Amino acid sequence: MRYTVGCRLAYAVETETVFIFNLEVARLERHRDLQETFRVTPDLPVRRLVAPVTGNRYAAVTVPPGAFSLDYEARVTLDPHRADPAGIGETPVKDLPLDILPYLLPSRFVSSDRLTPFAQAEFGDAAPGFERVSRICNWIHDHIAYVRGASDEETTADETLLKRAGVCRDFAHLGAAFCRALGIPARFVSCYAYGLVPCDFHAVFEAYLDGRWWLFDATRQANLDGLVRIGVGRDAAEIAFATPFGEMRPTGMEIRIDRVDGAPETGERTVAAISTAEAGPDAADGLR
Amino acid sequence: MRYTVGCRLAYAVETETVFIFNLEVARLERHRDLQETFRVTPDLPVRRLVAPVTGNRYAAVTVPPGAFSLDYEARVTLDPHRADPAGIGETPVKDLPLDILPYLLPSRFVSSDRLTPFAQAEFGDAAPGFERVSRICNWIHDHIAYVRGASDEETTADETLLKRAGVCRDFAHLGAAFCRALGIPARFVSCYAYGLVPCDFHAVFEAYLDGRWWLFDATRQANLDGLVRIGVGRDAAEIAFATPFGEMRPTGMEIRIDRVDGAPETGERTVAAISTAEAGPDAADGLR
Amino acid sequence: MRYTVGCRLAYAVETETVFIFNLEVARLERHRDLQETFRVTPDLPVRRLVAPVTGNRYAAVTVPPGAFSLDYEARVTLDPHRADPAGIGETPVKDLPLDILPYLLPSRFVSSDRLTPFAQAEFGDAAPGFERVSRICNWIHDHIAYVRGASDEETTADETLLKRAGVCRDFAHLGAAFCRALGIPARFVSCYAYGLVPCDFHAVFEAYLDGRWWLFDATRQANLDGLVRIGVGRDAAEIAFATPFGEMRPTGMEIRIDRVDGAPETGERTVAAISTAEAGPDAADGLR
Amino acid sequence: MRYTVGCRLAYAVETETVFIFNLEVARLERHRDLQETFRVTPDLPVRRLVAPVTGNRYAAVTVPPGAFSLDYEARVTLDPHRADPAGIGETPVKDLPLDILPYLLPSRFVSSDRLTPFAQAEFGDAAPGFERVSRICNWIHDHIAYVRGASDEETTADETLLKRAGVCRDFAHLGAAFCRALGIPARFVSCYAYGLVPCDFHAVFEAYLDGRWWLFDATRQANLDGLVRIGVGRDAAEIAFATPFGEMRPTGMEIRIDRVDGAPETGERTVAAISTAEAGPDAADGLR
Repeated sequence: MRYTVGCRLAYAVETETVFIFNLEVARLERHRDLQETFRVTPDLPVRRLVAPVTGNRYAAVTVPPGAFSLDYEARVTLDPHRADPAGIGETPVKDLPLDILPYLLPSRFVSSDRLTPFAQAEFGDAAPGFERVSRICNWIHDHIAYVRGASDEETTADETLLKRAGVCRDFAHLGAAFCRALGIPARFVSCYAYGLVPCDFHAVFEAYLDGRWWLFDATRQANLDGLVRIGVGRDAAEIAFATPFGEMRPTGMEIRIDRVDGAPETGERTVAAISTAEAGPDAADGLR
Repeated sequence: MRYTVGCRLAYAVETETVFIFNLEVARLERHRDLQETFRVTPDLPVRRLVAPVTGNRYAAVTVPPGAFSLDYEARVTLDPHRADPAGIGETPVKDLPLDILPYLLPSRFVSSDRLTPFAQAEFGDAAPGFERVSRICNWIHDHIAYVRGASDEETTADETLLKRAGVCRDFAHLGAAFCRALGIPARFVSCYAYGLVPCDFHAVFEAYLDGRWWLFDATRQANLDGLVRIGVGRDAAEIAFATPFGEMRPTGMEIRIDRVDGAPETGERTVAAISTAEAGPDAADGLR
Repeated sequence: MRYTVGCRLAYAVETETVFIFNLEVARLERHRDLQETFRVTPDLPVRRLVAPVTGNRYAAVTVPPGAFSLDYEARVTLDPHRADPAGIGETPVKDLPLDILPYLLPSRFVSSDRLTPFAQAEFGDAAPGFERVSRICNWIHDHIAYVRGASDEETTADETLLKRAGVCRDFAHLGAAFCRALGIPARFVSCYAYGLVPCDFHAVFEAYLDGRWWLFDATRQANLDGLVRIGVGRDAAEIAFATPFGEMRPTGMEIRIDRVDGAPETGERTVAAISTAEAGPDAADGLR
Repeated sequence: MRYTVGCRLAYAVETETVFIFNLEVARLERHRDLQETFRVTPDLPVRRLVAPVTGNRYAAVTVPPGAFSLDYEARVTLDPHRADPAGIGETPVKDLPLDILPYLLPSRFVSSDRLTPFAQAEFGDAAPGFERVSRICNWIHDHIAYVRGASDEETTADETLLKRAGVCRDFAHLGAAFCRALGIPARFVSCYAYGLVPCDFHAVFEAYLDGRWWLFDATRQANLDGLVRIGVGRDAAEIAFATPFGEMRPTGMEIRIDRVDGAPETGERTVAAISTAEAGPDAADGLR
């Protein structure tokens, strides 16, 4: 499946502002034939970083006062790894690659340490592996209402559990928190999501099972087949699409994703397990 | 200055337990002539990871029920970079290496987002650079009491500010939180600390100023010259000296540090700024 | 049923300490033939208050340094109002006596405002009245573990919900919080509890239904028939059995309750709804 | 000084809604010659409660769907007790009337238990009495910014301390919390405030010193001489000007206060200590 994705962000900058953007398509092997354009107006120097293990891409621009905009467009063919969910078990902690440890630990918004008793009580008896994480997603879908404005940028997973409401960011934080609380590594993923209405940046989570990162979306708002990954991190803090340092205000934002492979649109959701990150970051990097 | 450091940890293991230890001396250029022994009893296989940028070292052991102990001993010569504090200014955000960004963001125990108004009000007017971070340390020293048992493993920086009491872990979290809230990258450092009474694992923090990581200890309990680094991370979650998965209980713990270079002990504290991490992780790794 | 209850509290007082005790049997109409002795050693003056609406009794003693103890013993016949739970509905807010309003509001440990979405989602569909409150109690009994040491004196109802563990105080706070979140007035009750093992001060809650306060005990540790009330309040803060101002430490505590009516002990729990407070505090006081 | 105060509140009621209003001038001895009109449109029955100790007045109306409004107007002569602040000391806990105890305890928004170390460290050394409470007010005025929208209806005193911003409600909660943390009874007061710009319901706090409740306003936005009291409680939860149960939305709100005694307006603030509540509620009620 080939997609075209893009966004346009506009700002009125009041004092010199450093923007760090994380909105370009991640550099992953399973993101094939990536073609893209990235343009800022006015035409200012851009500093760049591609994180070596995750493929996250950061672009930093120092912007003087005045109007500023960013246009990004990319074409990419997704070639996800697919598998039968039934065969996907849990990796025992003793077999986890050591560099995955950070994704077992609590982070600012994924307060897994506070949710351990709750997670053990609700999901401790579930069959381990993909099934347990699916039960977590079903529980979140059934118990948390998707309500715009229900949360803010300081909302943590335990607060979402009490408020029983949130947006995609909160669903992903809560899913990751339950997983970590149960000893399953989990991380936060930002993406362009085919089928999301209205179109916006989306957030889902990945759980590490049987030696691989698998995608889960407790909101059920988009097809796992149609997630074009931007970044991955411990939680939303790490991969905000824009982190500004300075005084400015957003004046416009458009996000797009379309399918460009000519295949007929069936509207069906995949029932396969889907993985787009590599089999384990450590494998590629030989850290051990 | 040459030091010998070491520890002995003992456990009664009740169910098979995976331990991840982070207590070996970090692999840093300024840790010269490192000689060490690491032994577990019974003699079990040890999996190892040296994190590529930070030099943190992780050792994982899967332990069957029964008695278990670990003995570690190392000799290392510290060759810190020293500078006159007066000349150390702040690095503007626009000049920060992009891979330092994570150390500007809030983390589980370094709740810098909640402390921003407090930090701005107390330290916003201070002279930027080393002096501002010194003022932060002085404020913490003067306002937070060092009280064993005042905190637990879920205590966050904002809670410490209200409780007005904590241990080295809390002092380091609060110092790092104030820095991040002011746009100064900061991170948590675990170490062996010469002069600490009673001897124990110690925690301090580093702030990134003028292109380098500088050590700060708001507890004033040890000499900055005598800190033998173990690990560095966003906060204590990332570099616990032992992270056990399984049922066990500690049965003993001894930590040692001694000076072995024969130089006379003056008891004087350094007044220089001290840096032992490299000039910027990105520089070494060519990430940009 | 006639009971004898009592307690002995001993303290080592280090600086002059004002104790406010709330451990005497409440002055209620349904507490019949109350006979009691209250003695402090050394023999110091005692200031007293009987709260006019609730019947709570406070005794204040100013104690100089040295050993101090209090002995209390009472005999009382409980004559509770009993009813068939099936017939007990909810009082609509529009018919609530206005002086009951405080028991609808959040208080320090009964954080009902934070639990409203959770309560609505779990219990919003239950049949109103006694049945809904019974469902709340069953839910708490099934989801919260009774664990000594799981909480401290600052633990709030929302924290108990996350920790999934607590003691009687926490069970009562959570029950009251769910009720208030659903528009049912609820309050915290301290008592001597026949059948509690080991014997201790106990805490339950009352919900206001159909014009009366009814007792509920989500811990299921004692018989509702055998609760000899001490005090009632918004939460534990208001009716601590001892509130000391000064430096002292407890050196002993014994609590007793026995049945003295000669009736055979069947061990059966009542299935009736039980009420011992008057039909509405306002009724007695003519406040409207 | 004679004042005319009043308000007009309008609502669009969507489902039958029970409103409990607390906006009428309190029935206090020092509120002399109170004349008033209270009218609801449509003309619906009003249930009323005057709380016996505090003089708080509650009015309950059950409103069907449609437009609803309330008009209140009152004339009252304030005859406050005045005293020289220099002579006002603290009442030792051992001499406090027992029915004042609730105002020493933490409540939902006055989280004095969490602020005890902070209060002790900042104000523990101040001269006891009026001067210590004045220092608390000065500290709040100097450290907390008055910012509309900085808080919401769940904001607690400890959160305000971290956010360093709030509105009158938050200033009063924090002032009361610091007092309680230091053993000084304190409570929350709602009022009409002469001189407040723009005119609105105002909130201040009272501290109990030398056998009397004294008014304090850490916002410094109105003259203590010109506060026409509505209600008093542990915190804002207890005396909201309107507590609605049902679906409705506010469509208008006007609040008025004017001086009608013909005396020239000097704009001067009083420097006397001001008390309008009676010398101790217990005194009037003979509870001891």
